[in-house]
Amino acid sequence: MILEKKRIFEIVEKGTPGDKASIGFDYGIIVIIVLNIAAVIISSFNDLPEPLKQSLTIFEYISIIIFTAEYVLRLWTAPYKYPGHRFPYLRYIGSFMALIDLCAILPFYLPFIVGIDLRMLRILRLFRLLRILKLNRYNNAVELIAQVFRGEKEKIFTTIFMTGLMLLLASSVMYYVENTAQPDKFPNIIATLWWAVATLTTVGYGDVYPITTIGKVLSGVIALLGIGLVALPAGIISSGFIKAISKEEQQEGIRADGPAGKRVCPHCGKEIE
Amino acid sequence: MILEKKRIFEIVEKGTPGDKASIGFDYGIIVIIVLNIAAVIISSFNDLPEPLKQSLTIFEYISIIIFTAEYVLRLWTAPYKYPGHRFPYLRYIGSFMALIDLCAILPFYLPFIVGIDLRMLRILRLFRLLRILKLNRYNNAVELIAQVFRGEKEKIFTTIFMTGLMLLLASSVMYYVENTAQPDKFPNIIATLWWAVATLTTVGYGDVYPITTIGKVLSGVIALLGIGLVALPAGIISSGFIKAISKEEQQEGIRADGPAGKRVCPHCGKEIE
Amino acid sequence: MILEKKRIFEIVEKGTPGDKASIGFDYGIIVIIVLNIAAVIISSFNDLPEPLKQSLTIFEYISIIIFTAEYVLRLWTAPYKYPGHRFPYLRYIGSFMALIDLCAILPFYLPFIVGIDLRMLRILRLFRLLRILKLNRYNNAVELIAQVFRGEKEKIFTTIFMTGLMLLLASSVMYYVENTAQPDKFPNIIATLWWAVATLTTVGYGDVYPITTIGKVLSGVIALLGIGLVALPAGIISSGFIKAISKEEQQEGIRADGPAGKRVCPHCGKEIE
Amino acid sequence: MILEKKRIFEIVEKGTPGDKASIGFDYGIIVIIVLNIAAVIISSFNDLPEPLKQSLTIFEYISIIIFTAEYVLRLWTAPYKYPGHRFPYLRYIGSFMALIDLCAILPFYLPFIVGIDLRMLRILRLFRLLRILKLNRYNNAVELIAQVFRGEKEKIFTTIFMTGLMLLLASSVMYYVENTAQPDKFPNIIATLWWAVATLTTVGYGDVYPITTIGKVLSGVIALLGIGLVALPAGIISSGFIKAISKEEQQEGIRADGPAGKRVCPHCGKEIE
Repeated sequence: MILEKKRIFEIVEKGTPGDKASIGFDYGIIVIIVLNIAAVIISSFNDLPEPLKQSLTIFEYISIIIFTAEYVLRLWTAPYKYPGHRFPYLRYIGSFMALIDLCAILPFYLPFIVGIDLRMLRILRLFRLLRILKLNRYNNAVELIAQVFRGEKEKIFTTIFMTGLMLLLASSVMYYVENTAQPDKFPNIIATLWWAVATLTTVGYGDVYPITTIGKVLSGVIALLGIGLVALPAGIISSGFIKAISKEEQQEGIRADGPAGKRVCPHCGKEIE
Repeated sequence: MILEKKRIFEIVEKGTPGDKASIGFDYGIIVIIVLNIAAVIISSFNDLPEPLKQSLTIFEYISIIIFTAEYVLRLWTAPYKYPGHRFPYLRYIGSFMALIDLCAILPFYLPFIVGIDLRMLRILRLFRLLRILKLNRYNNAVELIAQVFRGEKEKIFTTIFMTGLMLLLASSVMYYVENTAQPDKFPNIIATLWWAVATLTTVGYGDVYPITTIGKVLSGVIALLGIGLVALPAGIISSGFIKAISKEEQQEGIRADGPAGKRVCPHCGKEIE
Repeated sequence: MILEKKRIFEIVEKGTPGDKASIGFDYGIIVIIVLNIAAVIISSFNDLPEPLKQSLTIFEYISIIIFTAEYVLRLWTAPYKYPGHRFPYLRYIGSFMALIDLCAILPFYLPFIVGIDLRMLRILRLFRLLRILKLNRYNNAVELIAQVFRGEKEKIFTTIFMTGLMLLLASSVMYYVENTAQPDKFPNIIATLWWAVATLTTVGYGDVYPITTIGKVLSGVIALLGIGLVALPAGIISSGFIKAISKEEQQEGIRADGPAGKRVCPHCGKEIE
Repeated sequence: MILEKKRIFEIVEKGTPGDKASIGFDYGIIVIIVLNIAAVIISSFNDLPEPLKQSLTIFEYISIIIFTAEYVLRLWTAPYKYPGHRFPYLRYIGSFMALIDLCAILPFYLPFIVGIDLRMLRILRLFRLLRILKLNRYNNAVELIAQVFRGEKEKIFTTIFMTGLMLLLASSVMYYVENTAQPDKFPNIIATLWWAVATLTTVGYGDVYPITTIGKVLSGVIALLGIGLVALPAGIISSGFIKAISKEEQQEGIRADGPAGKRVCPHCGKEIE
């Protein structure tokens, strides 16, 4: 059975709806990824019986072969993915998902080269599950969420930046306040960041908390500011969604045809000449 | 006293306002459900005096009889509920609320069949209290909330899916990071999920938390992402409500009659021909 | 100095701006209330020196005299507050703020009648500080917030009701799951509610948490639902504010005069005949 | 190299885009601030090697010289910053950022005057990093966020005020409820505020929690109210953003030119005469 290069491209990359081979390939890969993640989870348990361990190793070998083949096929068909691009192969290798894919298969080939255990990188295969969202009717929702985050990225960055400054400021002050009282819990400013994050995000594990009065006041203020930290991005994202939706509605309204085949205003129902 | 089948249907199912028998039946059932829940709660206490225990058992017998009768009546009148349906009885048995009802009465009849104690299923009667919301002026609010969740279900699912992936990814990395330092707290990836959920939702019980530096950094990042996890659904639901309300207003506006008995644009007050 | 009854009414109730006696009275009462709260807080400390204790007691006597006088004056001038009401005195006594006021002064007169110490009711004077918000430019903000909560009260009630059902359901299931493993922490369904609230609100003190696997799964689900519990009211209140604001804007727009002295549509700038 | 006073002003204050000296100066200062913050963090560690300590001290000397020179230059060029102001130098000294700057350099000159260690004030240099947001494309986002907070400041103040009252009320009641059971954890109302803040913000460190039944009920209520405390500012900020955005859009719409060079309604596309 000889397949054309172009046909292989259609199959390995997200194909047109109705293309059974392409969709079958996608689902097959997803099943293998899910099984791989299950394997990573299972192999994290201690005292696994020896036969199970061996099965997991064999399954890992098979998966690596499949993922390597898939990677090679995608690389080979890259010119179809980036038509007109001068270096389609390099373009593919440098793309985010391809780098994830490479990180997920490379450790297998490198155990004797690199000293440390890189097998935990296998968990990166999780990222590929994001493709599930691309396959079906969730695509619109993903697009809208991504669009909102893109549209609000300056505001989100500003929020993150101010959060970072606040964390650093709170840690520095707290270090000066609590260090003498609890030198083991607040040994330096970096270690105090652990308290600052736990408080500002209102996680509050309870392993580190102030015992001096000033420390408690500061902690209370940071915790209350944490409320604002939730409210600010909630407001940003809310307004982002509403902006996106109202833009959509406006376009729909202007495109929509009235009963007489004419465009009508979405608000007052009047015709638009 | 002979009642027609149709009249019984009107009584046991939510009747028209003003139908005293129907409303009385509804309130009666609600009172019995509330008492049942109270009985479940009371019987969870230790060292109850023997007479109270016996009263609770007798009350349970009576409740089961009532609930069984109600179930039978609803089943019997199912053809009125699903007129034109080919299998109204099966349709009723398969409906969500009927399954809940069945789960709540069946364990009583099966104690000698099934070995394990299924009496805790009685607590499922709680679900029937949701009908309280259906009975009165809260119906609109429930409808609107349900409509918002329905309208935003793709976005909500996407959020849940990404949350799941994030939890799994965080757990896997955390397992590799903390396992050697705290093998009892982070024994495997599944157990580490407990930490991941407690951190991402900012519950932070404090029974499990990282002690290594990398683990703390990861925990801080997850806690901060938890802020986004709150902000995202808040934004989705906000925009959902606003969409639902603006749709309502538009329809009202278009339907509304102007002072001269003509329809006016909700925005500019101009007549719509 | 003889004052008319009506003039006293103007002074003790919130007067017109510019009425110096009225505003002076309001600020005077607020100062006394703040001092009272400070006194309650100070007297909660142990080992106060004897002179301070005596000063606090004397201050309490003086405050009670002032508050009693104020209550009597307000009661006496009630007919001006509720003109045309058949029972203005009863109407005043039954109003929320008057009941608070009465609760705050009555314990002083009843120590020998009632056995238990009701002096903690003095803290109810805190509520009177809410009047600060009424005095000045925050009045609009308070009005708007109150209006939003009133407008969304069905949705808020529905949220609270469903939260209650969720708490009860989670507690019941958790009791059956964890009772055998931790009988001291989960002794009955009511005690388990403490865990349910701490988890759903993501407080997570860490005094009670599940140790069984099923218990942890349930706890994780409840914590994740807690995210929704924050998102839902945030969405409801957001949309409430937006509704209130857009209503305001519309009214302003319709009222607003165009350049030629004519009303214009806030959207398209067209005149409205 | 002699520079004019005006040119120095252009360099030390935020200059026009394209002014390389000005931008270079800004980035230089930012680099020095970042290094300073790093130095503060590093010097918080114990057991630093002696050479590193000395380097940090020398770096601190150099920074102080630079910051002092910058302060003097900014002060000297203040008349260009506040043209027409009667006391430009005093105006500059009194500005928020100048006070921060002064606090960050003054402690160095005063160690022998003031007894206590004010060197922790160096951390105030963190505030200057906020200028990063001013330098570039985040300026719009910062402006919008600031505008929203300004526009909603009455509502935010009202929320903070009511939160404060709620905290005080909860602490007072909790003190009376738990004091006898846990006199060391709830010794007085002020100390109980620590519990109130930890609960209302849902931090829940777990160092202080009620053990009596009434205390637990109260704690649960406060934690549930904490949900509302998050929802309320989220709603306020959401509506603030939406208001700000819709105002922008309206202005854009009215300004926007239609295809025929005429202004069109942003909603119905009709021309505005």
